[in-house]
Amino acid sequence: MTELKIAADLIAAENDKRAAALKSDYAALGENLSRREIDIDAITRQVADFFVAVPSWGVGTGGTRFARFPGLGEPRGIFDKLDDCSVIHQLTQATPTVSLHIPWDKADAKELKAKGDVLGLSFDAMNSNTFSDAPGQKHSYKYGSLSHTDAATRSQAIEHNLECIEIGKTIGSKALTVWVGDGSNFPGQSHFTRTFERYLASMGEIYKTLPDDWRLFTEHKMYEPAFYSTVVQDWGTNYLIAKTLGPKAFCLVDLGHHAPNTNIEMIVARLIQFGKLGGFHLNDSKYGDDDLDAGAIEPYRLFLVFNELVDAEHRGVKGFHPAHMIDQSHNVTDPIESLISSANEIRRAYAQALLVDRAALDGYQQDNDALMASETLKRAYRTDVEPILAEARRRAGGAVDPIATYRVSGYRKKVASERPAPAAGSGGIV
Amino acid sequence: MTELKIAADLIAAENDKRAAALKSDYAALGENLSRREIDIDAITRQVADFFVAVPSWGVGTGGTRFARFPGLGEPRGIFDKLDDCSVIHQLTQATPTVSLHIPWDKADAKELKAKGDVLGLSFDAMNSNTFSDAPGQKHSYKYGSLSHTDAATRSQAIEHNLECIEIGKTIGSKALTVWVGDGSNFPGQSHFTRTFERYLASMGEIYKTLPDDWRLFTEHKMYEPAFYSTVVQDWGTNYLIAKTLGPKAFCLVDLGHHAPNTNIEMIVARLIQFGKLGGFHLNDSKYGDDDLDAGAIEPYRLFLVFNELVDAEHRGVKGFHPAHMIDQSHNVTDPIESLISSANEIRRAYAQALLVDRAALDGYQQDNDALMASETLKRAYRTDVEPILAEARRRAGGAVDPIATYRVSGYRKKVASERPAPAAGSGGIV
Amino acid sequence: MTELKIAADLIAAENDKRAAALKSDYAALGENLSRREIDIDAITRQVADFFVAVPSWGVGTGGTRFARFPGLGEPRGIFDKLDDCSVIHQLTQATPTVSLHIPWDKADAKELKAKGDVLGLSFDAMNSNTFSDAPGQKHSYKYGSLSHTDAATRSQAIEHNLECIEIGKTIGSKALTVWVGDGSNFPGQSHFTRTFERYLASMGEIYKTLPDDWRLFTEHKMYEPAFYSTVVQDWGTNYLIAKTLGPKAFCLVDLGHHAPNTNIEMIVARLIQFGKLGGFHLNDSKYGDDDLDAGAIEPYRLFLVFNELVDAEHRGVKGFHPAHMIDQSHNVTDPIESLISSANEIRRAYAQALLVDRAALDGYQQDNDALMASETLKRAYRTDVEPILAEARRRAGGAVDPIATYRVSGYRKKVASERPAPAAGSGGIV
Amino acid sequence: MTELKIAADLIAAENDKRAAALKSDYAALGENLSRREIDIDAITRQVADFFVAVPSWGVGTGGTRFARFPGLGEPRGIFDKLDDCSVIHQLTQATPTVSLHIPWDKADAKELKAKGDVLGLSFDAMNSNTFSDAPGQKHSYKYGSLSHTDAATRSQAIEHNLECIEIGKTIGSKALTVWVGDGSNFPGQSHFTRTFERYLASMGEIYKTLPDDWRLFTEHKMYEPAFYSTVVQDWGTNYLIAKTLGPKAFCLVDLGHHAPNTNIEMIVARLIQFGKLGGFHLNDSKYGDDDLDAGAIEPYRLFLVFNELVDAEHRGVKGFHPAHMIDQSHNVTDPIESLISSANEIRRAYAQALLVDRAALDGYQQDNDALMASETLKRAYRTDVEPILAEARRRAGGAVDPIATYRVSGYRKKVASERPAPAAGSGGIV
Repeated sequence: MTELKIAADLIAAENDKRAAALKSDYAALGENLSRREIDIDAITRQVADFFVAVPSWGVGTGGTRFARFPGLGEPRGIFDKLDDCSVIHQLTQATPTVSLHIPWDKADAKELKAKGDVLGLSFDAMNSNTFSDAPGQKHSYKYGSLSHTDAATRSQAIEHNLECIEIGKTIGSKALTVWVGDGSNFPGQSHFTRTFERYLASMGEIYKTLPDDWRLFTEHKMYEPAFYSTVVQDWGTNYLIAKTLGPKAFCLVDLGHHAPNTNIEMIVARLIQFGKLGGFHLNDSKYGDDDLDAGAIEPYRLFLVFNELVDAEHRGVKGFHPAHMIDQSHNVTDPIESLISSANEIRRAYAQALLVDRAALDGYQQDNDALMASETLKRAYRTDVEPILAEARRRAGGAVDPIATYRVSGYRKKVASERPAPAAGSGGIV
Repeated sequence: MTELKIAADLIAAENDKRAAALKSDYAALGENLSRREIDIDAITRQVADFFVAVPSWGVGTGGTRFARFPGLGEPRGIFDKLDDCSVIHQLTQATPTVSLHIPWDKADAKELKAKGDVLGLSFDAMNSNTFSDAPGQKHSYKYGSLSHTDAATRSQAIEHNLECIEIGKTIGSKALTVWVGDGSNFPGQSHFTRTFERYLASMGEIYKTLPDDWRLFTEHKMYEPAFYSTVVQDWGTNYLIAKTLGPKAFCLVDLGHHAPNTNIEMIVARLIQFGKLGGFHLNDSKYGDDDLDAGAIEPYRLFLVFNELVDAEHRGVKGFHPAHMIDQSHNVTDPIESLISSANEIRRAYAQALLVDRAALDGYQQDNDALMASETLKRAYRTDVEPILAEARRRAGGAVDPIATYRVSGYRKKVASERPAPAAGSGGIV
Repeated sequence: MTELKIAADLIAAENDKRAAALKSDYAALGENLSRREIDIDAITRQVADFFVAVPSWGVGTGGTRFARFPGLGEPRGIFDKLDDCSVIHQLTQATPTVSLHIPWDKADAKELKAKGDVLGLSFDAMNSNTFSDAPGQKHSYKYGSLSHTDAATRSQAIEHNLECIEIGKTIGSKALTVWVGDGSNFPGQSHFTRTFERYLASMGEIYKTLPDDWRLFTEHKMYEPAFYSTVVQDWGTNYLIAKTLGPKAFCLVDLGHHAPNTNIEMIVARLIQFGKLGGFHLNDSKYGDDDLDAGAIEPYRLFLVFNELVDAEHRGVKGFHPAHMIDQSHNVTDPIESLISSANEIRRAYAQALLVDRAALDGYQQDNDALMASETLKRAYRTDVEPILAEARRRAGGAVDPIATYRVSGYRKKVASERPAPAAGSGGIV
Repeated sequence: MTELKIAADLIAAENDKRAAALKSDYAALGENLSRREIDIDAITRQVADFFVAVPSWGVGTGGTRFARFPGLGEPRGIFDKLDDCSVIHQLTQATPTVSLHIPWDKADAKELKAKGDVLGLSFDAMNSNTFSDAPGQKHSYKYGSLSHTDAATRSQAIEHNLECIEIGKTIGSKALTVWVGDGSNFPGQSHFTRTFERYLASMGEIYKTLPDDWRLFTEHKMYEPAFYSTVVQDWGTNYLIAKTLGPKAFCLVDLGHHAPNTNIEMIVARLIQFGKLGGFHLNDSKYGDDDLDAGAIEPYRLFLVFNELVDAEHRGVKGFHPAHMIDQSHNVTDPIESLISSANEIRRAYAQALLVDRAALDGYQQDNDALMASETLKRAYRTDVEPILAEARRRAGGAVDPIATYRVSGYRKKVASERPAPAAGSGGIV
């Protein structure tokens, strides 16, 4: 039986307070949608079946190169993190899986699995880390990892990825996500072609050991931590990687990893068309890889991405099952609250995309009726689907208002008393 | 009595078809808002009192340097344009004023005024043009206008602006908007300081003749048509202009005239704080000065701008009455439809901003509760206020669904038969 | 015998004035380079063998959507344009080929060929135009061309490209460049996948008719004239096109067609590595597709691109022979002067790249000596190679100082008296 | 007598090896410049008199939020840092001052002063830090410092700045630089106006205590560490601060703190024109606040900034004496080498700007001869002034080739043996 961090009674009591309003709003929305020939309950069921993975690192307070300001009750390790993740899932019923980051989350695999079972959580893609040096590590990644000029350093980075696969196999993961910070800070520092050749060769080694039922996700990013060139800098390079490696290799799209003004939803469409969309690291951003909460800055963009996903489902694209993961840095909020909110925003975008009248849209596209095509998307987007989201949570045993319920629960205060406060972080890096 | 381009009966008949649905949606929204202690009728009244000016040039099909693809029934001159503008206002009841552009809209002032009276339209800010050469013009603006190195060219540009004021006085305008393309394409081409000194001196001449009850709006823009430097490149320079000129000078913010990633709503806040926000050229954009339809690309950004305006109203900022104008280029839509849609989107952002719980927001800001502060804005934003917008239109005699009603009216077909088709435009500029 | 637009005597006389200074500077540079174990004469010969094509449209004054300000002596058609191009080549000895744009440059093919022969010019890649409507054209490209939803419009666009190939065959061209403006201004207006499928099918038709010794260049561009999405938006999509079409299809890189901050030289390296770099449209830019003179804004970036090209040559990459073309819009300069200057700047970047000590660089890259790797590039870059460029021109019969010599020649004044002045252009598009 | 970290003999011996080549190159350049009516020795003297401050934090290895990879011999505190700074100055003779950062550099003021005297270094602007929490600090800056909603937190931040002034007074500093990370990560989190009012009030408190012969520098930055809004986001806001505070307040321009594509040199010109340019934090960048080595990415941009400074000097702008400071993060190089190189690059840009023929440029600007104006700047820019820089160093007792000489000296190896290696840093922040 699943161990619940928040008392079921408390959730029920909080839900009761909001029952009448939800019922009224749900009925009104249902009536409106029925006029658009949409069955609200069908949408609610689809939303209830949509899940997004939570990153283990997301439940700790993030930071910048300038500072990190930890909150109360920071998780001390992977088991605390899993506790926090279970709270998010309990309240949202949207996040049944956790994505681990090695080496930080290294632990006895059986204990990990057992802890997940107790909490009702399973494990999504494994994440390797070769962008920083672990204590006692033999070769430094200061000048790269999988693409390093030194063969021994590359071997070490390959080995680390193989270890991630091994851990993942024991806990039921089915994918490895590889993001490297490899790149350069100066023109001339790296030879672009030789560096990429080394990267591809290293990835080939990793790919060879990948179990048949696993997928390999590679992630592109324009810049940071390298500030002149990055080995996997954009989706064009990412596509070449997936194509070179083979059928189990796919591209991961982090919404914050693109050049200013990039049309991300079109990249998503291209990767779907060429069979290489692996999945997402969801978040929002205004400037760079800001890792803000999904939907916080440009919610319409998030909707447009989901519009492509629902369209692909609608067209019955073969082998289409992208992975959805949150990847955010929570610097000024309670990380649990941000992840609850983000899971809801992601479902919101999905629900809105489900409401698009695709037959009408198709007609407008054929007729080049740009205004009505745009209006068709916006009509779906501006529908306030909160009653659907709340009802989907409620029916699954989650909270109608998960943030308020979380606050009432006192979970943060409880863990703050159990977990010692870390020292304030001050990088001194300017 | 106002001359109506669309039969009132037709509008009434179209509205009747949608009456039941609107009533139901309006009631449901009213019930929801009442739970949030908001009186829906009060909001509807505020929305009905919110107006935005239509630019005369907006009713013609726009274009790019590569091509222009005119539509059917393109207006042949200012009187056709005013006819088209009246259709927009009749259906939306949101655009009672038109902003003229000289020399294109030059006509006998009495006839202009009379035409406006017949159509129920009045005149907003006058717009001068010194970014292109008019036929027969003595001095070319190829190398600048108000900041040109040649005194005679500057004088000609000043005279043109004085003429715009004169025309405006006779038709009831109360503001002059000055946007110049002056700048440079090469480092070294212009001396930044001397050029700006000349610009300020020229503007000083214009300012001196401005009637006491007029306002002078200057508009900044990062680039285009100049591609290395622009004299009035950003709000910092724009502020210095308004400050140098005097109390009747204000800054105009075109939403598409900023650097990538700029936080425009903060610029709006700064200009309000320092008493120099004149108003807006509203539109939307993804890359540069794309001049797309307001709310088409980043609707949340439009909301955030209006959030600042409603906040300033709420705080009772003294002398706060910004001018709202649409400035768009309609390349692939019927311009009338785009302007109808944009007027609605602008009102939508205003209505959403009115729904923000400002007392709660203030509390969250004081407490640094970033998550709930964000959620407070988003809760207002995601409210589907379409019933309010539709009801505001309906009560004022406009259309519940103005695009559909416009299409039923056959107005475009009618003017297409009356107005000869222009030749396809092909600049040949690559 | 080649018809010379500038008297050879005049060039010789101008060169004489500068002979002593050039000799002195060339000797001093030679001495400096010899200390770096570089033979200046070998470099001068390589530079003298480097050529770049001039675009026929480049010799006319360009413009923006706001205005076009023609200069004196604007070419009236392709034969005037060829005259102007011959002046550029005569003075620089760097531009023996011209790239035509159809339909503007349509003329009797034999006459074209004959005119080229007389002037000592031959013909580079053909350029089709389906981004604007030609007078009398049956189907409009307002909503796209090769990717249009309407089959008849696509067929017309395909036919136009086939015609370009036909013309090209008769005048000795060996490549077709296809750039389309197809895209959308609104989310929803186009279905990304279906649109790209149609584009690929149309391009497949064109590719089928391409002669065996021709190359097909496709050009990506982030935005403009479409402002929400563009069918061929970036190099990732461009690569997919070239890969889908076949071995004669290659990607063309226009330096101004990328997102802000993009590392273009890395894209060049990737396309070389995967065998798909077709060539360049050279220019410079600060904001978007500004089409400014090559090297005017970021000369180091131009150098870094040429560094990749020289590196590929150095490594003996198989089948590596990219096409070099200028593509600029000359809005505020005499177009002939800008093209002279740009041809020199392009050769400058090439000459600087030839000076890079590649053995040393390779060592620094292996050792992760970022500082000295950077310094190795910069040492080559900061070498003032003007004496090499001037000497290469002089030896081939061109001008030591081509701009000054052009001004002394009076060519512009002469054609101004022969060619009637066009009316000032004023789009009225805002 | 100054304590020298590198033996003077060693420098002399290294210089001797390069004496003949330098003599030859200097003579050749001198001859070339004399033809342009420029006296090379006058330029060399001006260059020798140009200095730039080194930031104390620059001699330690920097990092990103992902990782920090320390090098050998990292300085353990301010006294080690001063040793390192003295090496930079000894070799370049360009960096006689150091800019301290409090609290990191806190030490007994007398000892600091004495150490500086021994090393021949003095102290530039003081830098306060309220963007991270110091151990034991009472109020956290997690949600802001000088603009915090809580008065006690603001007071604490004010007090810290007053302390910086106090320390500065004892060691001979004459300026305080204030950069705050205050801002927000979510729309709604901060009230833009109230936040800025609080910031201005806090700064007013600091300004009041500023000694009469001090200057107060405020620094704007678009984003990071705050990712939605930043209180001092651009030069427009920065100008308003300086104007509000009074005549001792000036704007500091960090070259990496602007929006993509921003014309920074024009901002410099505007601040000069309105009497508010305080100085610079010099560095280079491709994406954001990358803090790369000055001149490493866009050297022409650095030149264009110095072109404005030399132009202002040339025009005799009253009270014009901007402060020049380096502000970089050295992640993949030996920090001492990067600072040596950057000091040279900054002098290079200055030397090139001195070579601009300002009378000719003025004429071209008057005549709108854009091509020759551009060429006038580029002619100066492409002059290889390395012989001037080397000669200026040599004459002052520095190294002809300071990087090579530094490497020969073995300084890094020596301090590596004296200073214990820190643990590899791994933030674990993703």
